Formats: sequence, C-alpha cells, structure tokens
Amino acid sequence: MAVNLPPPDPKSLYPVPGVELGIAMAGIKKPNRKDLLVLRLAPGAVVAGVFTQNRFCAAPVLLAKKHLKNSVRALVVNTGNANAGTGKDGLGRALSVCAMLSKILNCKSRQILPFSTGVIMEPLPIDRIQAGLPDAVAGQASWLDAAEAIMTTDTVPKAVSRKVKLSAGEAVVTGIAKGAGMIRPDMATMLGFVATDAKVAQKTLQSIVKRVADKSFNCATVDGDTSTNDSFILMASGVGVEVRSEKDKNALEQAILEVSQKLAQAIIRDGEGATKFVTVKVERGRSEAECRKIAYSIAHSPLVKTAFFASDPNLGRILAAIGYAGVKDLDTSKVELYIDDVRVARAGGRDVQYREEQGIQAMKKPEFTVRTILNRGKAAATLWTCDLSFDYVKINAEYRT
Amino acid sequence: MAVNLPPPDPKSLYPVPGVELGIAMAGIKKPNRKDLLVLRLAPGAVVAGVFTQNRFCAAPVLLAKKHLKNSVRALVVNTGNANAGTGKDGLGRALSVCAMLSKILNCKSRQILPFSTGVIMEPLPIDRIQAGLPDAVAGQASWLDAAEAIMTTDTVPKAVSRKVKLSAGEAVVTGIAKGAGMIRPDMATMLGFVATDAKVAQKTLQSIVKRVADKSFNCATVDGDTSTNDSFILMASGVGVEVRSEKDKNALEQAILEVSQKLAQAIIRDGEGATKFVTVKVERGRSEAECRKIAYSIAHSPLVKTAFFASDPNLGRILAAIGYAGVKDLDTSKVELYIDDVRVARAGGRDVQYREEQGIQAMKKPEFTVRTILNRGKAAATLWTCDLSFDYVKINAEYRT
Repeated sequence: MAVNLPPPDPKSLYPVPGVELGIAMAGIKKPNRKDLLVLRLAPGAVVAGVFTQNRFCAAPVLLAKKHLKNSVRALVVNTGNANAGTGKDGLGRALSVCAMLSKILNCKSRQILPFSTGVIMEPLPIDRIQAGLPDAVAGQASWLDAAEAIMTTDTVPKAVSRKVKLSAGEAVVTGIAKGAGMIRPDMATMLGFVATDAKVAQKTLQSIVKRVADKSFNCATVDGDTSTNDSFILMASGVGVEVRSEKDKNALEQAILEVSQKLAQAIIRDGEGATKFVTVKVERGRSEAECRKIAYSIAHSPLVKTAFFASDPNLGRILAAIGYAGVKDLDTSKVELYIDDVRVARAGGRDVQYREEQGIQAMKKPEFTVRTILNRGKAAATLWTCDLSFDYVKINAEYRT
Repeated sequence: MAVNLPPPDPKSLYPVPGVELGIAMAGIKKPNRKDLLVLRLAPGAVVAGVFTQNRFCAAPVLLAKKHLKNSVRALVVNTGNANAGTGKDGLGRALSVCAMLSKILNCKSRQILPFSTGVIMEPLPIDRIQAGLPDAVAGQASWLDAAEAIMTTDTVPKAVSRKVKLSAGEAVVTGIAKGAGMIRPDMATMLGFVATDAKVAQKTLQSIVKRVADKSFNCATVDGDTSTNDSFILMASGVGVEVRSEKDKNALEQAILEVSQKLAQAIIRDGEGATKFVTVKVERGRSEAECRKIAYSIAHSPLVKTAFFASDPNLGRILAAIGYAGVKDLDTSKVELYIDDVRVARAGGRDVQYREEQGIQAMKKPEFTVRTILNRGKAAATLWTCDLSFDYVKINAEYRT
C-alpha cells in the first residue's frame, strides 16, 4: 500500500564502522516478530538528539533525554509497547531495561538510551525484554534487520544510506526510521536513528540534529497527532574520518539531511492507509511560521485529505483550509493555488483558464504537489503528507484488537 | 445514521408570528429537491448575526454582514452551491440574488441577507435561483420545510422550538440549522437561523447572539474544518410580546440558548458518518482558553476519533492529544481522565482500579462523555463531537461525484 516505496535494497545500506546492531524476537506484543533492537556504540562515540514536545512524553524519552549527557554506549529500542502514559511505574520499568542491558555490556545504566514504540498506557513487559536482551546483544544484525525490528503499523522497513567525501576521506551515513500513524513530529519523528562513522564533536552534532530535524522529520505529517515517543537520534561513532573544517561539517550535514529527508518521506509514503504522497508548499509568505501554519492547515484537513484520496479536485476545500489557518490579515484576493503546474485559483477564486480535467489528471497520480502562493513576502515552507483513506480508519479502528 | 436524532415532530415546531417562510425546488445542484428558502420578516423586525472567521469567507457572508446594519426585510438561502472562493464574480452573483428578491418584495437590495451552502469554488447559478424565487415568496412553508430546504449532506432536518414566558406574555423561539461536514464553527455553524416574535432592541439581540454562539454552535466540531459560510442569525420580528426587563431578557436568552444548543448538538449527531455523539469536557484548568485548546485537541485527533468509532478504549491516544495540545507547562502527573463515570487515568498513568471492560462498556454506547481534569485551576470548557468512521471518508471522497 505504501506510495512509491519499495523495500530498501540490502546492498544499498552501508554498515557504519563503530556501530554494532543486534535484534531479537522478544514477544513483547506478538510472538515471532522482530521487536527488540540494541545498537552498540564504539567507546568515544558521540550522540545528539531531539525529542517530542508532547507533555505526556514517554518514560523512555525522559530517560533518553537525561542519559544523552553521558558517554553513551548503547541504545535499546522495543516495539509493541510505547511505555507512555504510564506514570512513575513506567519510569521504573524503563530504568530497569537500562540496568539489565548495562549489566550485559558492563557499563552504567546512565550510558544506555532506551526507546519504546507501540501501544500507549500499557505496562512495559520487562521480563520479556530481559529474556530477549542476550540474543539482541550477541547477534550481528544488518541495518535492514534493525529497520524491521522497530516497525509497528509500518508496511515497509525504512532505511537509507549515503557516503560522503570529507577532507580526510570517506564517511558513511546510515539511518532507519519508523512511522505510519500518530505522525506530526514536533521535534522529530516517532523514532529515527541516523549513524555515521565520522569523528565529530558532540556540540557540532547537536547543532546538526536540530537543523536537520526541522528540514526533515518536522516537515512530515500523517494525521496531526504528535506522538508521545518522538525521538530523532544522531550518532557519530568516531572510528572513521575526522570532520576537520567547516566544509567537512557542511558536507556531513548535507548527507545526514538527505538520509533524514528520505526517511521522513518514507514515513509519509507508508502513512497509515496512504494511497497518495502529497508535497504541500506555501510560498511568498511574510514569515516561515505563517507558511507552515497554512501548510499544516491544508495537510491536516480531513476534507482535503479525503479529496486527495478520491483524486477529486474539490479545491474549495483547500481554499477553506487556507482561510481558517489563522493568518488574520491574509488578503485572499492575492492568493494563487497550483496543483503541480496547473494554476487552479487566483484573485480569490477559480482561475478562468482552469478546466477540471486538468485537476483530475494531476491528482490521479500517486504523487503531486499542492502549491499556495500568498504574494505577500519572501518566506516559504514545505510539508509532506498523505491522504485519508478507508484504510486509515480501518487500521486505527482495528489496531489493538 | 444520525446518533439519537429522530426527525423533528412537526407539531413541536411553533410558527413565529412576524416570520413567513417559503421554499422552492430551484434545481441548483440537483432537480426535485427543496433547495431555496426565503424568510420574510415583519416591518420593524431586528436581526443580529455572527459569521465565519475564515479569511476565504463566502460572497454571501460578506454581503449579509454588510446588509445586517440596515432594516432587514428578508433572508434568502440556497443549498447546493456555497458561492465561496469565487472572487469578485461571486460577489456580483450574490448581489444579483438580493436585487431579484428585492424587486419581488418591493424593497431595497440592501435589506436582503443572502446565504449559500454547498460546493465551494463553483459559480452560483443565478438564473435558476431567479426562476425559483416567485415560488419561494408565494408559498407558505413550515419550519420543517425550511429545515429541509437548507440541508446538504445532512441526513435529518434540524429544527427546534421553545416557548418562553416574559412579563408581558408568552414568546416563541424557533430555529433551524444545517451542518454535517466542514464543521468547526469559529463564530457559528455553517447555517443556523433562530427566530422569535418577541420585541427586543437590535443591540440587545446582537449581544445575545454572541453569547449564545459561544455556548452552542462554537462548542461543536465534526472535523475541525471551519467553513467559509458559517452564519448564525438571530431574528426578532417584534410582533409579539416586548422584552421589558433584565429578567425578560435573561429568560429570552435562555430559551434562545436552549434552541441553539439543541441545534448545534443535532449537527454533531448528524455529523458526516457519525456513529457516536461524544461530549468532551475539560475541567479545573487555569483558563477557559486552555481548556478549549485541550478539548479541541482531543476532539480533532483522527486517532481518538477512530478509537471512538471502534468503541476501543485506546485511552493513551487521548492522553497523547492532551499532551500535544500546546499547554506548555501542563503537569501531566496531576491529570485525571474519565470516560463517563469511570476513572481511567490518574497521576500521569493508568488508574490501577481501572479494568478495560469498563472502558469498553462506556464507549460502546452511542453517547458518552470524555472528561479531563487538569487540577490546576477553576476554568472549564465543553465541546460536542463525533467519531471518524468509514462513512466519513466515503461521504467526503464521493461528495460532488
């Protein structure tokens, strides 16, 4: 069902020196599925991250944020249970998972970052995780295995890789992510992990992670629901080539951005029930904030999303969404609207040149761009979203049961 | 499909002296359906209204707002075409409709309030309206006929009536509304018309309409889409008893509020594809604004709405929606969550007493209340909403085609 998203070719995914992966089938929610991932980092690796702004942020997120300050040795990720909305008990369970893994790895609990994804408000089955950990530590898994081990309602594993030339040689950037529903990241996606072998300062990495998140995961929305567990983690093992100059930093950041954008777009392509991948651009606004406001208004409107699903150029719904976005002094008589290259509206109404067949033609494709031109400034914003289909309702009415 | 919403009993709908109704089948979008309504007012009647905040507000809304200042003689309402997103041409067409009706009624165009509902961005077929107007002026229609003549995707006509005792005698309050989709009024519903025969000053009426809108139509949301055509109009023909005291005013306002709340709730009960009518209460917040923010966040979450549809107490989704509502300093460890009388969450997590069967039992009913207690102040807010079902997608993917 995913839109133009074939499974990743295993050969396209480069291993990252200094990052070792292991997975297990711990039976956290269902038996016989990969649901536990451990990423071990070489000594001296640095890690940076951004996390959900949801006030009900999950117990593992609280710990991961805190432990990020230390010298991180491993990440442990489970699917099947989000350990969110679980109060103090949930915090205790997340801490136990760190403790168990730290014993096996002979390090401190505070050197472990825990992550969880799945159902909210259920107690995390730590006994099952404990039983699965030795397998996950012993195994030698690929990045594709790792991508599979963090899936929930995802139908396709998401993994992307790039090589980048720095002054001292070549570095690798490989990342995985999961998504599908409750996707409207407010700092990051539900779970995104990107690793490089480059040697780079933690401070630099932290500045990169913020900028990259804003241009990748924070531009993706399936349903407007900001998850309790959003985390985007960037790791640099440091066993590879060193970042020596501003130019090196920019090259590395660009590779990380490319990987992250591909992963964020993959989440939308595999959005719950998605049949269309839609890029929403808002241009010539006064500020990026107002462009994003209007873009989110379009991308979150159930009426617009069902029209996408039906390939129905019911474009008045898009105008309505622009109109209620909350840009109080918007002069609608200046607004232009395009579907791909077809101008459908101008001067506050339908473009006289526009014929409906053009709109249908554009919207029938699995991918198209909705472009709004405000004609009141120089700022712009871009989002990626998907349609609202029968299957979105089916998946979310049936999830859990 | 509407939730606990039988069609109105014609005998329960009191005529309003000083208000005459006429309808026609003008074939605006489809043949053989009531799609044109004219409400004529006695000389000296006063009218007050509140309108959509959508920047793409429809041409008729612009005119109705402007004409409201004059001595209003009639309202003309068509369904099948919203005359929104139609620019200057749309404004000209709305003005033509006023001119045509004013000729028949022998008054000025500026004494007519025009209203339209239906598809956005299509030119209003004024020739068909012109052909239908004589019928609509000649006829003697009931309030039930009137309610039917303004329906779009509504499955049940919406009309409510009350009698109220004032010091000088009894007054009547009767109202009609339409809704179904694109419902998240930001001042009023798509179309709501409430009339009384009481004699009351325009200034008083205007203050009543604002307060009533905030406690009725502005508490309703189907899909978070604020329409381009929202209008809530309050009419007092003045041929009945006079409002003589503050007590009279309060009694009249209460009757108008009751009628308006019933109409607003009827819109939600008949929300597109609705199978559940859900009251969302947020209590003990610091301000009404933050309570409304959280209530809207719950009521607009596609994940929460699909869980309502499935009668699935996937309550973590509600906690997530509370968490991302944007109340930055919310202490989640103080939040309590109830489904009807069942406390499901406290102290930031699941209530230890709570058993899932209780949640399923409560949510299986066609009507229930989701109550969030923030424990940080004395303010509260209430919204009414419905679930997100297969039929919502079906209706909105197929509307127009």
